[in-house]
Amino acid sequence: MNKLTKLFGIDYPIIQGGMVWVSGGKLAAAVSRAGGLGIVGAGSMQPELLQRHITKAQSLTSKPIAVNIPLLYEKAHEQIDMALSLGIKIFFTSAGSPKKFTSYLKDHAVTVVHVVSTPEQAKSSEEAGVDAVVAEGFEAGGHNGRDEITTMTLIPQVRDLIKIPLIAAGGIADGRAMLAALSLGADGVQMGTRFLMTRESSAHEDFKNLLLQATPSSTKTLMKATVPVRLFSNKFAEEILQIEQSFHGENLKQKLKDHLGKYRAQHGMLEGDLINGELEVGQVIALIKNIPSVEEVFIELIRDYQQAYKNLPLHL
Amino acid sequence: MNKLTKLFGIDYPIIQGGMVWVSGGKLAAAVSRAGGLGIVGAGSMQPELLQRHITKAQSLTSKPIAVNIPLLYEKAHEQIDMALSLGIKIFFTSAGSPKKFTSYLKDHAVTVVHVVSTPEQAKSSEEAGVDAVVAEGFEAGGHNGRDEITTMTLIPQVRDLIKIPLIAAGGIADGRAMLAALSLGADGVQMGTRFLMTRESSAHEDFKNLLLQATPSSTKTLMKATVPVRLFSNKFAEEILQIEQSFHGENLKQKLKDHLGKYRAQHGMLEGDLINGELEVGQVIALIKNIPSVEEVFIELIRDYQQAYKNLPLHL
Repeated sequence: MNKLTKLFGIDYPIIQGGMVWVSGGKLAAAVSRAGGLGIVGAGSMQPELLQRHITKAQSLTSKPIAVNIPLLYEKAHEQIDMALSLGIKIFFTSAGSPKKFTSYLKDHAVTVVHVVSTPEQAKSSEEAGVDAVVAEGFEAGGHNGRDEITTMTLIPQVRDLIKIPLIAAGGIADGRAMLAALSLGADGVQMGTRFLMTRESSAHEDFKNLLLQATPSSTKTLMKATVPVRLFSNKFAEEILQIEQSFHGENLKQKLKDHLGKYRAQHGMLEGDLINGELEVGQVIALIKNIPSVEEVFIELIRDYQQAYKNLPLHL
Repeated sequence: MNKLTKLFGIDYPIIQGGMVWVSGGKLAAAVSRAGGLGIVGAGSMQPELLQRHITKAQSLTSKPIAVNIPLLYEKAHEQIDMALSLGIKIFFTSAGSPKKFTSYLKDHAVTVVHVVSTPEQAKSSEEAGVDAVVAEGFEAGGHNGRDEITTMTLIPQVRDLIKIPLIAAGGIADGRAMLAALSLGADGVQMGTRFLMTRESSAHEDFKNLLLQATPSSTKTLMKATVPVRLFSNKFAEEILQIEQSFHGENLKQKLKDHLGKYRAQHGMLEGDLINGELEVGQVIALIKNIPSVEEVFIELIRDYQQAYKNLPLHL
């Protein structure tokens, strides 16, 4: 047991990332049942839909369940109040300032974790009173920091700067990468893409099957002129790239917004429009070649972590 | 002793990266004397200058010294013949196809290592007959792969694809990152920026002192429209960024070439023009806060590796 498993009351320091359209109650419950921390991703959910997913997760397990609240969403406060009313005790906040809701949440005696992409954000999260930090590297899927700091350089920098528990994210999908993250100073890991590629995730089956064909260059961080996001390279992503190579300045920003439009992520990831949908996924997808159950992921992770540990030389 | 130290005849699986204007005979000899593998970086060197640096290194140590040959340079063949004539037995080739010189070098019974930035390149290097591969992630300083594959996801992918020894590079400057690299499946590490920041490197003292002030966002990979390169954000880099945000297509390429001109790297890194020079450095510079001797770097690396190892839990 380390300080992270103690903080959350879980068996393994393995957290499932909150992912828009992918991490509902079913996935969160499966991860918590397996001994990790499952997270219902509230991104894009109306409070009533969030209520349904939390209730579903709670009906499937009595173990701790967390909720991830992207703070930029206009209904973030309503989502928080809904989750509090349902007895949620662990909140992950992201995409906004840790000063915004941390004291409100701490007043309700819950555990707060903030997601960051720079060492400075980790420090200001600690100062805002959060209980732990997720530091997410450039290789992560979905929304991405502007400074492009990779997991390899981000984790030791954050470790040197804060005292509270540190969760590494970005590029982690197997036991080797878990061991690497702990080597760099993390207390545990958060994985998104690995859990997207499980039977219990709500990603569309066609999307999961497409991802089995991913290559090392299948993802790219695009839309840096507006909000950077790492996407699978389908027709939509290629069109975005074309726009980025054909315009600049304010014109580029407007063209990107216009072409993105609305509901692209829902169409792609949930409804399976693999051509015109927005498909958020991490660079580590190239290492994932199966769609197992969450329980199988845990068995493999723990076995491969120990194997990788045994392969390490004590003396160089 | 692992297969990498055996291959090179060295004590520790720690390789010093070949760096333009920074890794001459003095630095290479210091690294080899400390038990690693020192590399004279032949980039931009006339064959006569390369001769001077190799001779200097050989005068300072009888341990193995390697030479790094960027294959795009028009005098690469002359450089290779010069190094062969001086008895160099280990060649690192980069920035070009491994098919170009590997069989020529193997005919001279020397050890050949090729530097790659994708799993596919690693595979084709093995097929071309090289003895080992350096896989370099997106966080590395200087010239950079187009696919932006980070060290965290690159190393396990390469490990799964090749059987020959694997050296991890990019984002590695301390014992924690070395342990992480070995966790991911590497047999050893190559470090550039850490050795740039030593008393023995030939980087200008003003450049080294400037780098002591680096922050997590001090470097950026620029010039993706021509040849991607990770640079320290000085006035020159800011101008490049401005150009990239103001032009596109062929126009952008021409503007970048014009503004880069010639000798920018020499002016910056060797001669200390910190304003208008091109300053190549890795993202990991944010973790480096001193300018020790090479020997001190080795003592610290080995101590910190063992400390990080002891902190790892066997059971999650």
